Amino acid sequence: MGSDSDLAIMKEAAQVLEEFGVPYEITIVSAHRTPERMFEYAKTAEERGIEVIIAGAGGAAHLPGMTASITTLPVIGVPVKGSNLEGLDSLLSIVQMPKGVPVATVAINNARNAGLLAISILGVKYPDLREKLKAYKERMRQEVVEKACELERLGYLEYLKSNSQR
Amino acid sequence: MGSDSDLAIMKEAAQVLEEFGVPYEITIVSAHRTPERMFEYAKTAEERGIEVIIAGAGGAAHLPGMTASITTLPVIGVPVKGSNLEGLDSLLSIVQMPKGVPVATVAINNARNAGLLAISILGVKYPDLREKLKAYKERMRQEVVEKACELERLGYLEYLKSNSQR
Amino acid sequence: MGSDSDLAIMKEAAQVLEEFGVPYEITIVSAHRTPERMFEYAKTAEERGIEVIIAGAGGAAHLPGMTASITTLPVIGVPVKGSNLEGLDSLLSIVQMPKGVPVATVAINNARNAGLLAISILGVKYPDLREKLKAYKERMRQEVVEKACELERLGYLEYLKSNSQR
Amino acid sequence: MGSDSDLAIMKEAAQVLEEFGVPYEITIVSAHRTPERMFEYAKTAEERGIEVIIAGAGGAAHLPGMTASITTLPVIGVPVKGSNLEGLDSLLSIVQMPKGVPVATVAINNARNAGLLAISILGVKYPDLREKLKAYKERMRQEVVEKACELERLGYLEYLKSNSQR
Amino acid sequence: MGSDSDLAIMKEAAQVLEEFGVPYEITIVSAHRTPERMFEYAKTAEERGIEVIIAGAGGAAHLPGMTASITTLPVIGVPVKGSNLEGLDSLLSIVQMPKGVPVATVAINNARNAGLLAISILGVKYPDLREKLKAYKERMRQEVVEKACELERLGYLEYLKSNSQR
Amino acid sequence: MGSDSDLAIMKEAAQVLEEFGVPYEITIVSAHRTPERMFEYAKTAEERGIEVIIAGAGGAAHLPGMTASITTLPVIGVPVKGSNLEGLDSLLSIVQMPKGVPVATVAINNARNAGLLAISILGVKYPDLREKLKAYKERMRQEVVEKACELERLGYLEYLKSNSQR
Amino acid sequence: MGSDSDLAIMKEAAQVLEEFGVPYEITIVSAHRTPERMFEYAKTAEERGIEVIIAGAGGAAHLPGMTASITTLPVIGVPVKGSNLEGLDSLLSIVQMPKGVPVATVAINNARNAGLLAISILGVKYPDLREKLKAYKERMRQEVVEKACELERLGYLEYLKSNSQR
Amino acid sequence: MGSDSDLAIMKEAAQVLEEFGVPYEITIVSAHRTPERMFEYAKTAEERGIEVIIAGAGGAAHLPGMTASITTLPVIGVPVKGSNLEGLDSLLSIVQMPKGVPVATVAINNARNAGLLAISILGVKYPDLREKLKAYKERMRQEVVEKACELERLGYLEYLKSNSQR
Repeated sequence: MGSDSDLAIMKEAAQVLEEFGVPYEITIVSAHRTPERMFEYAKTAEERGIEVIIAGAGGAAHLPGMTASITTLPVIGVPVKGSNLEGLDSLLSIVQMPKGVPVATVAINNARNAGLLAISILGVKYPDLREKLKAYKERMRQEVVEKACELERLGYLEYLKSNSQR
Repeated sequence: MGSDSDLAIMKEAAQVLEEFGVPYEITIVSAHRTPERMFEYAKTAEERGIEVIIAGAGGAAHLPGMTASITTLPVIGVPVKGSNLEGLDSLLSIVQMPKGVPVATVAINNARNAGLLAISILGVKYPDLREKLKAYKERMRQEVVEKACELERLGYLEYLKSNSQR
Repeated sequence: MGSDSDLAIMKEAAQVLEEFGVPYEITIVSAHRTPERMFEYAKTAEERGIEVIIAGAGGAAHLPGMTASITTLPVIGVPVKGSNLEGLDSLLSIVQMPKGVPVATVAINNARNAGLLAISILGVKYPDLREKLKAYKERMRQEVVEKACELERLGYLEYLKSNSQR
Repeated sequence: MGSDSDLAIMKEAAQVLEEFGVPYEITIVSAHRTPERMFEYAKTAEERGIEVIIAGAGGAAHLPGMTASITTLPVIGVPVKGSNLEGLDSLLSIVQMPKGVPVATVAINNARNAGLLAISILGVKYPDLREKLKAYKERMRQEVVEKACELERLGYLEYLKSNSQR
Repeated sequence: MGSDSDLAIMKEAAQVLEEFGVPYEITIVSAHRTPERMFEYAKTAEERGIEVIIAGAGGAAHLPGMTASITTLPVIGVPVKGSNLEGLDSLLSIVQMPKGVPVATVAINNARNAGLLAISILGVKYPDLREKLKAYKERMRQEVVEKACELERLGYLEYLKSNSQR
Repeated sequence: MGSDSDLAIMKEAAQVLEEFGVPYEITIVSAHRTPERMFEYAKTAEERGIEVIIAGAGGAAHLPGMTASITTLPVIGVPVKGSNLEGLDSLLSIVQMPKGVPVATVAINNARNAGLLAISILGVKYPDLREKLKAYKERMRQEVVEKACELERLGYLEYLKSNSQR
Repeated sequence: MGSDSDLAIMKEAAQVLEEFGVPYEITIVSAHRTPERMFEYAKTAEERGIEVIIAGAGGAAHLPGMTASITTLPVIGVPVKGSNLEGLDSLLSIVQMPKGVPVATVAINNARNAGLLAISILGVKYPDLREKLKAYKERMRQEVVEKACELERLGYLEYLKSNSQR
Repeated sequence: MGSDSDLAIMKEAAQVLEEFGVPYEITIVSAHRTPERMFEYAKTAEERGIEVIIAGAGGAAHLPGMTASITTLPVIGVPVKGSNLEGLDSLLSIVQMPKGVPVATVAINNARNAGLLAISILGVKYPDLREKLKAYKERMRQEVVEKACELERLGYLEYLKSNSQR
């Protein structure tokens, strides 16, 4: 990530990778304050055995795009919402890459989805990860169904009450 | 893609795959006009041996997100610019997915990048694709350097003139 | 609705239906986390006697549009404001539907209006609902007139004071 | 519609109604230039036997909302794109109605969808219209499937060529 | 104003009029919930001796534009910021009026400026109001100069401290 | 106006003033390229007998606001659409004035409305202008009614045909 | 700056200048409330020995552009975020200057960067400032590297915990 | 500039520098396609005697910001408008830089202003450039005054006619 202020958002990507048992490294690489470190990091990522890079940044977010320009690994970009413009600046700075250098962009602040997208990309190579992803999706499905049942059983007033008590 | 009117844009993804020698299928699957076909398509993609899905759509673009909700394959979304709102509606409809179901979104109308992102994802599994991608990036680099040399040699006035004559 | 986190907003639609004595069912159907359930729900809605569907969702909100693609019942969409972009993403994802599949979109977070729109649609068939709607509009009118009288009588300073005390 | 300059867009709603055999009237009622006419029109619509109103307007588009404030019939709003702001002004002026007075808003310039939404609303009362709508959707589905078959058969290059020749 | 919820904003217009000794009336007239009242209000404003109308509303704000369509008095519109879209919807609904019916729009939530604009309009007819406006501008100027002197004298650290103590 | 490139838009304000028989002067005063001229112009406008100022400008449009800061005459601002951002930059630069200095802003490129707003402001002082404005509004009303009659008589197909022939 | 309410933001520019030992003056000059003072200020800045001007303002922010129109010194503009539109109005009012009169615009609310840009501009003339700027960038770099080391050493959970305790 | 497709815009910066007799070099350096070249270019710019850098790019425009992160020279950024989003993506990608690394951003597509800003920055060191800039501004002023005279003399109808004939 570009700054430790992004960590509260970006940690969700790490958590997903832990849930799926995927080894990862997490660090701070600022495109703007440590351009050489970024260069070095992106340049050597492949040989260090990294297979997917997740890069999150806010404002004029250059880290994902610059990383993608240096490596041929797939790069996932997470637009982090700053204190103004509602994250639109980060989103456009990451997604609107020119022809030749794509960044796989996910929703604003949605580092969890960056983690899941990494899993699905790795799932192309590692069948067990795809199986785990199927199981994850099945759990999501069940959770929704359970909530739906509870809502239908309780009615919305009771449901809201019982949820606010938790 | 969601409509044959998107083909003029989406064909660039096909062209990239051909350049890299990656077999692909291209078809029309409309989330809104053929929801069952979309369902079927996404559901059976994996077993038919598909490894990455590229989905392009415009306006309230639901095809990429719905496909991603049904399959565990990585889904790349291409926001296609419609006749109003400058493609912002397509972009937000594709990228702003909720937690649990990511779409790897590329720039508006940038189907070429969707193809390249697919290559880089497949490159995680197929080393030869990664090598080809490195060569592609090297060619891009050289092309820029050549143009830069020509611009420096000719000066901008001559350069513009000689380019407009082509 | 697409998630139980939308319930605090969507319950207002239910409240309107209760005020007008219209039987309804309320449940959670996520286009992205339970696509088959959504499919089933929309597919069978008509035969289960449902006459109008209200669907609320946030972000890349696909539930209203997908429901409309599957059923021929009128579908009312409520854009639910998420934690960024001020609800613009939900609004555009719901309203900008392609030719052939309309969603009757109401204002951001305005589930109450979704309920009232459902009443006015049902009023085409059920004259008593139209009469109730006329009475409702008349009560709204009177309420405004009463407030206007009070404001004119008290002056704005007193009016603000007496309202903040309530 | 609010102006005869909107007719090129709004005629598509009329065409849909004709396709479905639904009698309709089409006229110009400007909220801003003929407020009394608008008032009269909306006030007497129900007693003249009208069951659904489609109102299209551009810029600070007040016709749909004002009509909805006067009648209890369902009002469908079509945001017509003007010469600047890409239709965003029309869309927000129509969809962002306050609590109590909904407008069923469709996509920018999408008068065809306004017609189809009217059909689906009338379908609540008139089963034959719902059947026709099902047939319409089935035709849309088949058209997509046919195009998809043709695209798969011809390949995208031939398909684009054969389409541009038509 | 369109609703008593706008009063906290709109009262600033009243305060300006009081400061300048201009008689005024303040009331609630909802374009959407009391269209006939609005009609009546705007229709009779001139004969009741009103010379300028200030209309404030939020969301799909139709009150200023509709009032301007009915009367030939100058109408000043105040876009009131609602709970989403940052006031952009109100602003566009008020300012983007079609040819023939202008609304003199001021900044979002800036009812004070609506009052001052009314004064400057009335100043065309009443020279004493223009003189008062000149004096008001002179006081504004002096206030800025005094603050500037204090800032230069104290330095910014002391200035911030002394201001936060007030 | 700020530049002679705005003249194609701004001339419509002059045309309105001519239609109403209001004497006017039209000139180019650039806030950015001739700040002293602007200063002088605004400063002396009142004593030269000017009663209302119409100022049009594009991009970071400062002319209306700066003029309003120097004079106590009512200032009407016309946001002129430039070659990018759809006129949003001009609109916000003109309408979002701080407390104390209002600009009466009209729609993007709508110089005709600036002229009409000037008439309605002058109508506060000159009853004959108000009468003329009433007649103008009545003519607008009749024009709409005539078009509506023609549309109803001809049907929309014939109407469109006969209009395109003119 | 245009108002003392901008001081909480703009003081960061002053702090940078102090850190770099650059003498500066800080004051309030409102384009709208003290246009003559602004004129005077910008006109005499050069002869008073000022070499770079930093101007911050919010809303329809005219101070930076007007200052740039009067002086030939480089003018740096800081868009200050107001209470609506997320600072977009300030940004566009400052950056979208017409041909002939540039403002060097920095990010919304980013007065610190305005200070640093002033240093880098002065560094063209004063080599010691450029050296200090290099040292500053090196410190920024080291800070990131240290945080990265700490994050890698502690893991993200511990890192977040230890940071929230500070 | 980032691509030779930006040259039609960026050449205006070169033209300004020629008009002012400032030596310059112009070349293509793509942040995304030639990251190492960019790195090298920015790293060595100072020692090659460059004093100001102008960088123009479109879409997710990273060239200006990355250049600014590597050098301590002042970097001027020109947002080049691409084929969608009206240049908003370029603008935000360039201007919204994080604390520590400013880019002096000018208006969308306004390379001429980038050239003029460079002159005014160089004018801090080179008094003759400042004098030339004063003369340039004086010529701009005179041009406006001449056009104003011509407009006043001819009237707007004749003026428009005589200008369209040129």
